[in-house]
Amino acid sequence: MTIFRRRQNEQEMIGLLNFSCDYLEGAHPAILQRLAETNMEKAVGYGDDPYCVSARKKIRAACRCPEADVFFLSGGTQTNLTVISALLRPFEGVLSAQTGHIESHEAGAVEATGHKVLTLPQHEGKLSAHDVEQFMQEYLSNPTREHLASPGMVYISHPTEYGTLYSKAELSVLSEVCRRYQLSLFLDGARLGYGLAARNADLTLEDLASLCDVFYIGGTKVGALCGEAIVIPQAGRIPHFFTMMKQRGALLAKGRLLGIQFDTLFTGNLYLEISSHAIDMAHRLKEGLLAKGYHLYLDSPTNQQFLILENTRMERLARDVAFSFWERVDDTHSVIRLATSWATRPEEIDALLALL
Amino acid sequence: MTIFRRRQNEQEMIGLLNFSCDYLEGAHPAILQRLAETNMEKAVGYGDDPYCVSARKKIRAACRCPEADVFFLSGGTQTNLTVISALLRPFEGVLSAQTGHIESHEAGAVEATGHKVLTLPQHEGKLSAHDVEQFMQEYLSNPTREHLASPGMVYISHPTEYGTLYSKAELSVLSEVCRRYQLSLFLDGARLGYGLAARNADLTLEDLASLCDVFYIGGTKVGALCGEAIVIPQAGRIPHFFTMMKQRGALLAKGRLLGIQFDTLFTGNLYLEISSHAIDMAHRLKEGLLAKGYHLYLDSPTNQQFLILENTRMERLARDVAFSFWERVDDTHSVIRLATSWATRPEEIDALLALL
Amino acid sequence: MTIFRRRQNEQEMIGLLNFSCDYLEGAHPAILQRLAETNMEKAVGYGDDPYCVSARKKIRAACRCPEADVFFLSGGTQTNLTVISALLRPFEGVLSAQTGHIESHEAGAVEATGHKVLTLPQHEGKLSAHDVEQFMQEYLSNPTREHLASPGMVYISHPTEYGTLYSKAELSVLSEVCRRYQLSLFLDGARLGYGLAARNADLTLEDLASLCDVFYIGGTKVGALCGEAIVIPQAGRIPHFFTMMKQRGALLAKGRLLGIQFDTLFTGNLYLEISSHAIDMAHRLKEGLLAKGYHLYLDSPTNQQFLILENTRMERLARDVAFSFWERVDDTHSVIRLATSWATRPEEIDALLALL
Amino acid sequence: MTIFRRRQNEQEMIGLLNFSCDYLEGAHPAILQRLAETNMEKAVGYGDDPYCVSARKKIRAACRCPEADVFFLSGGTQTNLTVISALLRPFEGVLSAQTGHIESHEAGAVEATGHKVLTLPQHEGKLSAHDVEQFMQEYLSNPTREHLASPGMVYISHPTEYGTLYSKAELSVLSEVCRRYQLSLFLDGARLGYGLAARNADLTLEDLASLCDVFYIGGTKVGALCGEAIVIPQAGRIPHFFTMMKQRGALLAKGRLLGIQFDTLFTGNLYLEISSHAIDMAHRLKEGLLAKGYHLYLDSPTNQQFLILENTRMERLARDVAFSFWERVDDTHSVIRLATSWATRPEEIDALLALL
Repeated sequence: MTIFRRRQNEQEMIGLLNFSCDYLEGAHPAILQRLAETNMEKAVGYGDDPYCVSARKKIRAACRCPEADVFFLSGGTQTNLTVISALLRPFEGVLSAQTGHIESHEAGAVEATGHKVLTLPQHEGKLSAHDVEQFMQEYLSNPTREHLASPGMVYISHPTEYGTLYSKAELSVLSEVCRRYQLSLFLDGARLGYGLAARNADLTLEDLASLCDVFYIGGTKVGALCGEAIVIPQAGRIPHFFTMMKQRGALLAKGRLLGIQFDTLFTGNLYLEISSHAIDMAHRLKEGLLAKGYHLYLDSPTNQQFLILENTRMERLARDVAFSFWERVDDTHSVIRLATSWATRPEEIDALLALL
Repeated sequence: MTIFRRRQNEQEMIGLLNFSCDYLEGAHPAILQRLAETNMEKAVGYGDDPYCVSARKKIRAACRCPEADVFFLSGGTQTNLTVISALLRPFEGVLSAQTGHIESHEAGAVEATGHKVLTLPQHEGKLSAHDVEQFMQEYLSNPTREHLASPGMVYISHPTEYGTLYSKAELSVLSEVCRRYQLSLFLDGARLGYGLAARNADLTLEDLASLCDVFYIGGTKVGALCGEAIVIPQAGRIPHFFTMMKQRGALLAKGRLLGIQFDTLFTGNLYLEISSHAIDMAHRLKEGLLAKGYHLYLDSPTNQQFLILENTRMERLARDVAFSFWERVDDTHSVIRLATSWATRPEEIDALLALL
Repeated sequence: MTIFRRRQNEQEMIGLLNFSCDYLEGAHPAILQRLAETNMEKAVGYGDDPYCVSARKKIRAACRCPEADVFFLSGGTQTNLTVISALLRPFEGVLSAQTGHIESHEAGAVEATGHKVLTLPQHEGKLSAHDVEQFMQEYLSNPTREHLASPGMVYISHPTEYGTLYSKAELSVLSEVCRRYQLSLFLDGARLGYGLAARNADLTLEDLASLCDVFYIGGTKVGALCGEAIVIPQAGRIPHFFTMMKQRGALLAKGRLLGIQFDTLFTGNLYLEISSHAIDMAHRLKEGLLAKGYHLYLDSPTNQQFLILENTRMERLARDVAFSFWERVDDTHSVIRLATSWATRPEEIDALLALL
Repeated sequence: MTIFRRRQNEQEMIGLLNFSCDYLEGAHPAILQRLAETNMEKAVGYGDDPYCVSARKKIRAACRCPEADVFFLSGGTQTNLTVISALLRPFEGVLSAQTGHIESHEAGAVEATGHKVLTLPQHEGKLSAHDVEQFMQEYLSNPTREHLASPGMVYISHPTEYGTLYSKAELSVLSEVCRRYQLSLFLDGARLGYGLAARNADLTLEDLASLCDVFYIGGTKVGALCGEAIVIPQAGRIPHFFTMMKQRGALLAKGRLLGIQFDTLFTGNLYLEISSHAIDMAHRLKEGLLAKGYHLYLDSPTNQQFLILENTRMERLARDVAFSFWERVDDTHSVIRLATSWATRPEEIDALLALL
């Protein structure tokens, strides 16, 4: 993923049309306001403050999982490496699609904790239950399997790196396969809001809590300054997770910063509302593109849209718009990513469409 | 370190006299205001935004070190483990006082990156150049030294965990010993502001830049919501440090959160001003305690004051005041820590003194 | 790789025709004799004994590399993990063919030291210089490469896991690409003797010393009880490698056990002579198979031969012969591996051919 | 520990009086003979050969522990790091005396697997149950213990690095404390034979099997070329230990090398007989020293004797005898170590005593 703008132009980018990612702005204003209101209160550190306590309660309620363990971390890679190294035994690896964030964009963070990422094919960014089952059958029928890293868990992202979503049926089958083969199932929800709010999406937080061993609710890409909320539906499933957070440098002294943000996002229906707005903006964009005869790389129901462009056209567009180069299609065409977010304004979509 | 308050009373703590640490409040109001003002600007991520760029320039200027590499991380343990694992080769360990934060309070974070902490005695929390030199001479004269973890760097904290400070003379000698034995010198400045602002303190940022290989300027405990600014005076001293931050989960997507905070703290003289306030409060406390005949455990020139109390008196005090139990003196006496900060009000000191 | 024999028959296997691997017997008799002759001599430990000293000299001479660092370790996985973790910086990964031993058969040993294995396609088990170059160009042109594990070295095996060999031309180009992109080149020579002795093989120890940064001369699979000799042609290329051996548990107290074995193997021309014998046996087998109309999976010039068999025939063969199941071809055919070694007798080949 | 001989004299050392360690010679002749007798038999690898199977049975019988898991590794540091990293969870550390081999002589091997060594005082090389209990009580009563590495196991050596032994009473209390606090107890028996054979020793293999979670029977220092036999009395206590051996490079392809050695050592009473011989030699030495008025540093009942010598006398002795310098006593006196072994001859003791 590349932001297709030259560095020297960063200053100019303010004000430009910019669809390069979903973490361009600060935080939803309600978060900043709550930070200001509570600023001079004294609170204990490390996640025991009243805001973390309140945010935990609201998240448990939203997941209909009153006993869940809930932890707040700062970012996605940090969350992935902390959860994965906490779940696995030393001889175990984690199964992931080849396009999974942990495999392709995290600088070897999982390996740095001592664990192998075992890759499987991706299907529009998704891992198939069938592939996992086949892998496990081959592994278990391999008489020399004790010489191999043992598959201990499955990592998926939802939405995926391609903006796609697991259906409830798909996740149910995958979860069932995981349980049959004693693999923990971990869902990276860095963009979870956009997955929950997608039209036709049939997976709820409650579903995730019943189908996954661990998942997280992304804040950084969905309206927070920073922060991801880990949900472990079965309390005590990862003993001493707090100490492992500390050990990985993932424990904020002023945990209130994360607590206040998630408490705000889970007050009223804010998290879903701002996610729905991003989805609306994505549809406005998608429909506009299709109406103009553009080709999409795949049919993404979430806030990331993947557009196929002829290369000279891509370069012309880059003069006025920031976007992410995604991958080459052939010698003359490329895929670019356009991301909307909670902060995208309809005028921005319209201006982009006018340019195309 | 223990916050000497029962958990169930956390709710009540708001409003109570609370000297348990220096990260009780949110951020200095100027930071929140700047976050609000810039909130809807779009900015590139990962530390390349205009606020990080500006903060870097100001920090380089403050250190009179125009070429320095400057990186922003979220917290102290994260900074320590990332810097130490980046500086050391696999066979090397880090020298630290037994009371060093990395040895005693970070859940084995350094060891989790594969490196041994080699402990030396502490002298009021400080490491002595003499002890380092003696250790190195013994190491180098040991014919089986190749069977031992090799000392590769020195870790110190300034102010130390006991609030004490290195003098310029002490740090110069330590730095000279490190250079003679090819040990990198890393200074943990989680509370650096309070060290710079201490009365009679003779070490400046410029001195640190000339004497250390790496140091950091603490934000979390000095008025920021979160954040530590790593300064590597010699540019390129740690190649690919950015990738190592990513790998350790220490790279915030919205780097602006850290950039804006440090840009604000280094605008005008804010960082030193708010630190000076904490020092003034500490002196008001210290003088009041001494006037009342109390005994201090040691003579701390910074914002942490260590008071010896008879145990029943300590327990009585705990009904009205939150503080940190530090350690036992004997069967009937204990040391407690009282911390002031940028946010402490004189009335709070006076109320505490009235209670004692 | 699977030894296609049921466990309960292990007792019967003694005496059976057995081509399942090249480490079935103990050691070449000359090694055992030398161990016996020197047994009661007192010698210093950890590789400083006179036999290690002598073996080092002989290996340096054989490589025409009088300054090389030479270290003796016990086995292949141990050697791979120790060398790779010693060569890489924390943010770096190692490039390997997907069929490379470190990727596919070592239980995540490299990852357990904190490093990612970056896989590339295999061409009959080999890595192509072209693929490495293309990978590096894509990596270097990727503007977000600092978010990825950085390629720091290349791992190859010679002979490969498929028995194939790099030509001098191929290795020269690969070496040149590595140097151009500052990648260390490490050659796993667990079966190196069989590679050096192969007919038409054009790579010598001297070539390896000039083309690789590190390589090792396998003993375990070429006549030793255990042991691999690491050669680092440029002395001092990996400082403190001894300490890293100690740290990984790869330093034998009685280093003489390894020194005596390699000193024997490099006395006269023993290492090459016994390797040539294995090659002769492999050709006898190969020619016999082709004469009988069998199909080989690929044209291996070394001691591992890969035969395509119809499945029922494979199962019938398994009643009388131990071999390794390698992989499925289709629903009715499989690939099996037949390995010869320094210890294979012509009568065994003839008996096997008679059965087929 | 230092072998007090200049390097350049290594060649001369052969034939010299040499008490510098207990791994100076090759192997007990019965082992070499058995290696020769079985050499050309074909056997499966990785510890499933008939000799490993037989050795396991004999060791289980000697421990009266018919269900025990038994694994064979090559050396002590390798065994320590593999067992410790297999037993601990990521957030846990291992308790050890400050003089424990893992803390003081293994190049940070345990830390390289990610775990902290938590040190306690030593009492003639031993850890006291009282100190462990006190540590645990302080840990458990520390309200911020979740910020610390969690104590997960206890490491002891028996005999210790000072040649001393735990009594059955001492080990029973220590074991009881470990069980009470859910700490695994791991006993490093690199010199176990000399501990079992010591006069007045009251701990048997059966006792170790009932009191420890894991222990090992040292071969390298007790008559083998290499090898340590790990005993895990409760089968399945460490699942997938085989894979962790592979991952750490601790799995020999020709496992027979270790199997044959331990099978020989546990045939008849060989292991104890050769250990008893070393004890006899140590007593001959000890009695001779005391008769001559020498002072011993402590009363070691095993094969390592620690002698206090005036420094000029020590240097004179070093002209004729190889020994290990242990530590300084004061400006004019040092402690040296003299080690006997299964291979020490009475004439050597007498010659040494004649020189003193």
